[in-house]
Amino acid sequence: MSAPSIPPSLPVPAGFHVHVANVGIKDDTDDFVVLAADRTCPAAAVFTRSRFAGPSVVVSRAHAAGGRLRAIVAISKNANVATGPEGLADAREVVEAVARRLGCAPTEVLVASTGVIGRRYPMDRLRAHLAALPAPMGTDIVAAARGIMTTDTVPKVAEARAGVARVVGIAKGVGMIEPDMATLLTFVLTDAALEAPALDALFRRAVDRTFNSVSVDTDTSTSDTAAVLASGAAGPVDPVELEAAVHAVCLDLATQVARDGEGAETLIEVRVAGARDDAQARRVAKSIVNSPLVKTAIHGADPNWGRVAMAIGKTPDCDDVDPDRVTIAFGDQQVYPARLDTEALARLSAYLGGDEVTIAVSLGVGSGTWTVWGCDLTAGYVRINADYTT
Amino acid sequence: MSAPSIPPSLPVPAGFHVHVANVGIKDDTDDFVVLAADRTCPAAAVFTRSRFAGPSVVVSRAHAAGGRLRAIVAISKNANVATGPEGLADAREVVEAVARRLGCAPTEVLVASTGVIGRRYPMDRLRAHLAALPAPMGTDIVAAARGIMTTDTVPKVAEARAGVARVVGIAKGVGMIEPDMATLLTFVLTDAALEAPALDALFRRAVDRTFNSVSVDTDTSTSDTAAVLASGAAGPVDPVELEAAVHAVCLDLATQVARDGEGAETLIEVRVAGARDDAQARRVAKSIVNSPLVKTAIHGADPNWGRVAMAIGKTPDCDDVDPDRVTIAFGDQQVYPARLDTEALARLSAYLGGDEVTIAVSLGVGSGTWTVWGCDLTAGYVRINADYTT
Repeated sequence: MSAPSIPPSLPVPAGFHVHVANVGIKDDTDDFVVLAADRTCPAAAVFTRSRFAGPSVVVSRAHAAGGRLRAIVAISKNANVATGPEGLADAREVVEAVARRLGCAPTEVLVASTGVIGRRYPMDRLRAHLAALPAPMGTDIVAAARGIMTTDTVPKVAEARAGVARVVGIAKGVGMIEPDMATLLTFVLTDAALEAPALDALFRRAVDRTFNSVSVDTDTSTSDTAAVLASGAAGPVDPVELEAAVHAVCLDLATQVARDGEGAETLIEVRVAGARDDAQARRVAKSIVNSPLVKTAIHGADPNWGRVAMAIGKTPDCDDVDPDRVTIAFGDQQVYPARLDTEALARLSAYLGGDEVTIAVSLGVGSGTWTVWGCDLTAGYVRINADYTT
Repeated sequence: MSAPSIPPSLPVPAGFHVHVANVGIKDDTDDFVVLAADRTCPAAAVFTRSRFAGPSVVVSRAHAAGGRLRAIVAISKNANVATGPEGLADAREVVEAVARRLGCAPTEVLVASTGVIGRRYPMDRLRAHLAALPAPMGTDIVAAARGIMTTDTVPKVAEARAGVARVVGIAKGVGMIEPDMATLLTFVLTDAALEAPALDALFRRAVDRTFNSVSVDTDTSTSDTAAVLASGAAGPVDPVELEAAVHAVCLDLATQVARDGEGAETLIEVRVAGARDDAQARRVAKSIVNSPLVKTAIHGADPNWGRVAMAIGKTPDCDDVDPDRVTIAFGDQQVYPARLDTEALARLSAYLGGDEVTIAVSLGVGSGTWTVWGCDLTAGYVRINADYTT
């Protein structure tokens, strides 16, 4: 599948530095990343709602509540989930060591970790690295994006501008989940100056319309973490422009995640309009993008609009949806209601065989809209997830 | 996959007769079935909640509301869905012709149809058959079970006794859905005597704990129909015994459906106990049985309890579930919390490689329980659904 080309390197925004290293968590690829602001700055973060959240999420949720952070430490190839009190102590020890090196309070450091579950970190190796931890001096965000990968096939990086400020984000995850039951992580850095409450509000809106609107397989991980830090080094910018830039970065990263979904060959975008409200549009869009029958139809390049109609029909709280007012299109070709000639069907099959497919639905009820992203369901998905062994 | 062996034939309960024929809807297999009571009798039915329900469901829902029926006519290999006003007229014409032959009101006849959508019945062939329709004289319910199959690989029949009364049921469906976007149909006949309101209440309870607790792939069809007719020929029986018999027949049929799920190799039973209430137990059980990661883990015979924990963790409205009080078992082997030795792991892998797997979860909150059934997710499912072309 074609993906946006990732630049070989990209500088972090002003006021940030990174440290990327191999600690030997699993192999000799980079697995230890610190994203650090040069001084403590406004920040916001959102986390998985899973009841089985691991210690990284438990610790980070408490630290993010303060609205000011100095750094994020991310460890890959081990999720540190279901590791008991020892796992919680390990997470705290990592956070404290990083805080000590940076000269900040431990409550100003987030920790995120994805990979295998039920297994403790190799603490001897981690301790050796933490004892000699250098001050973050790196400026390449692409190296950090590679350092947080687990089974991702490509690093995920996005950038946008808001006046004089830059917004740069990285993400990892090949679905809301992946074979190790790890996870979506995304970190956004900006040198724009703004206060924590405003940052929190705009970040939540952006995540809701982007990452929370991506689904590879309906499963929700125990470790999902999205965080933003604003160093302020570029000074204040138009908040509307900044929100647009953060939204653009999150959207870019979210579709990169959907494209890299396990076994995925096609990026599916589902746009629902004409709903009673945005919430109804979102429910219908998610019902469509998560339907295994729709996902397999797209995989087979089959213009089977009946499966889209089925997915609309099963969505809860849609009593006001009248099938006679619904329209369904694949790309710009309306398929319901419609009678397609042979030529139109051939064009449609060619379109559905591409690596990006849009399904556009109008419900004919009101003016609510929502867009979600997902991917097709392939034998590759089954192979990846059935063959993986704990 | 081993399935319960279907008897070569089985008589309908007293007071019923069947007519099974080939009308040529698609090929030369039986595709036209009438299940008729010898006289109009108490009946109950439940239908899909889909907003895209077809004319068969629209007509039958209205007719079932009266609580008294004479017959069910079932046509297979064509769903008569999304066929416009003509499809509705076709459904009414079929019902009226059957009613005329039986000498009852059209409102005493249900119609059910599954198969390809968006295509009208071959009305010339149907009309020719209806014009010379014989009185139902058959007594073999297995022939009827074969006559309603579409892509099912085996007919589905079940029987139970309640005192002097018999309860016999048939079903079709290889999931809540199948490639043609057809559907689950189930028809239960009993010679017990009881009034329609009591029959309706016990049937709804049975369907809720059986068919509504089966999920092959989370998709809900536009045509799901479950109906029960009570001829009364055997006289009244203990209502508790009758409910147990109807429940047993529905459960037997429901697990036959799950076993025959598209591409399925393993029947999965998920039992949740210790929930706040039955509704919470049901939500958690469905979250587990529908998780693609759990389904692929079972397919791979992988004792990956972390995926079960993930599925519990993502279930809505479970704030009172504490991971430290949860237990998870595969069969009779607890896997969380636990430390398994090599021998136990080997036994577990052998168990998971079988054709029936039970996942038992205790939430440690209250006394609510629910059990659901599903199947593994295989490359066969993807193949069947991606290769099917409208």
